[in-house]
Amino acid sequence: MTTTFPHALFETPLDKDSAATPLQRQLHHRLKEAILDSRLAPGSRLPASRGLAEVLAISRNTVTAAYEHLAAEGYVQQDRQGTRVAALSSTSRPARPRAEPAAMPVTARRLAQIRPTAPPSPNSQALRPGIPALSHFPLAAWRRACDQAIRRAGPSALGYGDPLGEPALRTAIARHLAVARGVRCAPEQIVITEGAQEALSLCVRLLSNPGDTAWVEDPGYRGAKVAMQGGDLRILPLRVDADGLAATEADWKTQPPRLVYTTPSHQYPVGAVLTVARRLALIAQARRLGAWILEDDYDSEFRHAGEPIGAMQGLVAQAPVLYLGTFSKTMFPSLRLGFLVLPEALLAPTRTPLQEMLRGGHRFEQLAMAEFIESGQFSRHLGRMRRLYRDRQQALREALTRHLGVPHRIEGGHCGLHLSVRLPVGYPDATIAQAAQRYGIAPTALSSFALQPQPQDNGLVLGYGNTSAELFAPLVQRLGALARDAQL
Amino acid sequence: MTTTFPHALFETPLDKDSAATPLQRQLHHRLKEAILDSRLAPGSRLPASRGLAEVLAISRNTVTAAYEHLAAEGYVQQDRQGTRVAALSSTSRPARPRAEPAAMPVTARRLAQIRPTAPPSPNSQALRPGIPALSHFPLAAWRRACDQAIRRAGPSALGYGDPLGEPALRTAIARHLAVARGVRCAPEQIVITEGAQEALSLCVRLLSNPGDTAWVEDPGYRGAKVAMQGGDLRILPLRVDADGLAATEADWKTQPPRLVYTTPSHQYPVGAVLTVARRLALIAQARRLGAWILEDDYDSEFRHAGEPIGAMQGLVAQAPVLYLGTFSKTMFPSLRLGFLVLPEALLAPTRTPLQEMLRGGHRFEQLAMAEFIESGQFSRHLGRMRRLYRDRQQALREALTRHLGVPHRIEGGHCGLHLSVRLPVGYPDATIAQAAQRYGIAPTALSSFALQPQPQDNGLVLGYGNTSAELFAPLVQRLGALARDAQL
Repeated sequence: MTTTFPHALFETPLDKDSAATPLQRQLHHRLKEAILDSRLAPGSRLPASRGLAEVLAISRNTVTAAYEHLAAEGYVQQDRQGTRVAALSSTSRPARPRAEPAAMPVTARRLAQIRPTAPPSPNSQALRPGIPALSHFPLAAWRRACDQAIRRAGPSALGYGDPLGEPALRTAIARHLAVARGVRCAPEQIVITEGAQEALSLCVRLLSNPGDTAWVEDPGYRGAKVAMQGGDLRILPLRVDADGLAATEADWKTQPPRLVYTTPSHQYPVGAVLTVARRLALIAQARRLGAWILEDDYDSEFRHAGEPIGAMQGLVAQAPVLYLGTFSKTMFPSLRLGFLVLPEALLAPTRTPLQEMLRGGHRFEQLAMAEFIESGQFSRHLGRMRRLYRDRQQALREALTRHLGVPHRIEGGHCGLHLSVRLPVGYPDATIAQAAQRYGIAPTALSSFALQPQPQDNGLVLGYGNTSAELFAPLVQRLGALARDAQL
Repeated sequence: MTTTFPHALFETPLDKDSAATPLQRQLHHRLKEAILDSRLAPGSRLPASRGLAEVLAISRNTVTAAYEHLAAEGYVQQDRQGTRVAALSSTSRPARPRAEPAAMPVTARRLAQIRPTAPPSPNSQALRPGIPALSHFPLAAWRRACDQAIRRAGPSALGYGDPLGEPALRTAIARHLAVARGVRCAPEQIVITEGAQEALSLCVRLLSNPGDTAWVEDPGYRGAKVAMQGGDLRILPLRVDADGLAATEADWKTQPPRLVYTTPSHQYPVGAVLTVARRLALIAQARRLGAWILEDDYDSEFRHAGEPIGAMQGLVAQAPVLYLGTFSKTMFPSLRLGFLVLPEALLAPTRTPLQEMLRGGHRFEQLAMAEFIESGQFSRHLGRMRRLYRDRQQALREALTRHLGVPHRIEGGHCGLHLSVRLPVGYPDATIAQAAQRYGIAPTALSSFALQPQPQDNGLVLGYGNTSAELFAPLVQRLGALARDAQL
């Protein structure tokens, strides 16, 4: 085997003064490219390091280091006879950068079910649902809490913590939930998650198999459907009436669920409260069938009037209910901190899977949140926001009545950050919502929350959380004008 | 229908001086309990509010408020005739708190595959793999970066951001990867994730269907298997030799994969480097079959000697490779920040699903990380840690040679934070690892990384990232003694 080293490789001299690309890296790069382009043929020998060093007037160490690096990567093989180009796959390198790559098909069938919703609008867009009053958040206090958490916990909180979340935060949440929501749980039952979305997908992975049936509210929270689709479940949309999720005897018989997703305190988005009769029936049937209820209590901290309605989780002992909560609305969305309350009966069987599936993390933020709760800052913030939202809701109701100028019916709003406004079918909601974007207004079309939209699912979901009440009159006037423009 | 109000309900008078439980809440609670316990029968009428207010000597508003609250919850119905107890499910309330609840079976079959590993040991335990040098992390600088990010971004970063991650961080990562790892990508190809684990489960959900085949390295990273199991994939463990993942022609023919998980730069845990010949062959075969390669580049920033080995992602243009990275080792584990580099060909087909599946979040931390990279603090930290780990690795090698006193072979260690030490089968690794816990030493048994353990998969994986070199001699002596104690 002869040495077939193409000295043309070095027609352009190495740049010996370059600090950015040291000699060894330049040499390694040239040789690698030559091997990949087959200018250095498989099996051919590289020159002895001493010889090449002399030719190039560089140190021998530089050459041997480059050779060793090529050997570690498998471009060359080294033995007593020297260094030889390895036999790489003949299909090796395709022609250099082609034009635009053709889109390759994504093979997961479940993705075909995911319908695109309107592109996310900026948080600042008026009447966008689901955004709390960002400018009213006590950011300076939160900054101090974060800073303090880092200083207090120190390097010990840099490592992996409890995969289920910081014990201090789980304790604080358990205490808060008992008082505020009537939830019966010990800190051990709480799992800290990346917002409600991770809590949902965790429930799906823990409790269902592909092909199982999941009941969802229709219209209802879209994220729940995405989580169910992620688990390849068969999704059964159930209608919602004034008493909340309406399941019939026939539904229980012919399409028994493995999972039931519900928002009993304030149905999302139409605002019904699930009656106690239906709650008890749901629990009794789920218990009989071995099904699990996923109770999403997304905004009930903001009940505007009367006493808060207790959670289903605490209604009867040992209910087959997994309670989901989030700080996205009570604190702020980008915190991405949520939690799941496991029933006691699931503690033992989920222990191992949860330890392997979760990694914990964000420990400083969790510690800051625990302190925020325990010091009372969280409750005070909730109280202030409850009053703010109550006032904004009242103002929005009045603005709708006075300025919309289109027949409508307002739903929900005893709670939370949004109102749903039903419109006659002649005013197509998607058209109105789309047109509103041009004016910086971001209502969501009610029909977009339904898997099987009915005529009555036509309307607008209006968030008043992050929009000042002074703007309601002109905004509602604009929406009214757009509705009339869109009229069929 | 007569009024059947049991005045016994008020044998214990309401506590009118209580600030903790206002009158309305006490009244509501008593009535609710009476309804749930059937002391107030379905259909029976509650007394008129005026009458009850007089009887109890409280204000009529308090009574009507309590009634309205009960009505909102569905315990009673209100009409012109007054207030009547609703017909609740007859199965309603079970007997009060029973003893320990029986563990209910979790129904997801996939969980049965998840094997418990050793319980997580404290980060401080000696020689625990996967923990970087926590006390060497520049925590004060990170604290300042976080504080600055909150101050600079202000309330605008409290809302939802780009679900794929902060643009500033994606830009910083793309730039860093091009220089440090030869990864070819635009910021748009980067998706910020909750560490490598979320990146993995995202790949599974985007690219596979239940029942598809996934190849994993054996022994290999356990988290990859958990992610695959989460997607109900059929997992095929492939052996690893000195040249990395060893796939045969027969494997490609008889068990073609949809996904191939690999750690080419430094195989986890045995440290092989996947040769270029195998890399090119893997890419060519994957391209032919429409399979996707998941390249986990978990620790290659810490290559101790020579030039870093480039990523597979950048080896050829438009490779069917999804590149996964994490800051868990380069920064710290509880940061839980990782990323995924999508091939250009997947950008269009994954756009909608990713927008619906992800919520973004942790924007302040992402902005702090972007600034940490752009200001050069990240590179300087990496440089310091690279030198520290190189020295610790060398010291651990020497300690093993001098003090283990048991036949062994050291694998890997050109890179990263751990060494793998193979032991003869007569020294059972799980027994040694278990015994070591009692001494605060946390090696991982090599066999625990294998789905189908072979005799040569017996040994200890030793992390030197977070353990001071001064301790190596006594720690290794102790491990040697434990190995001899465990000898069969």
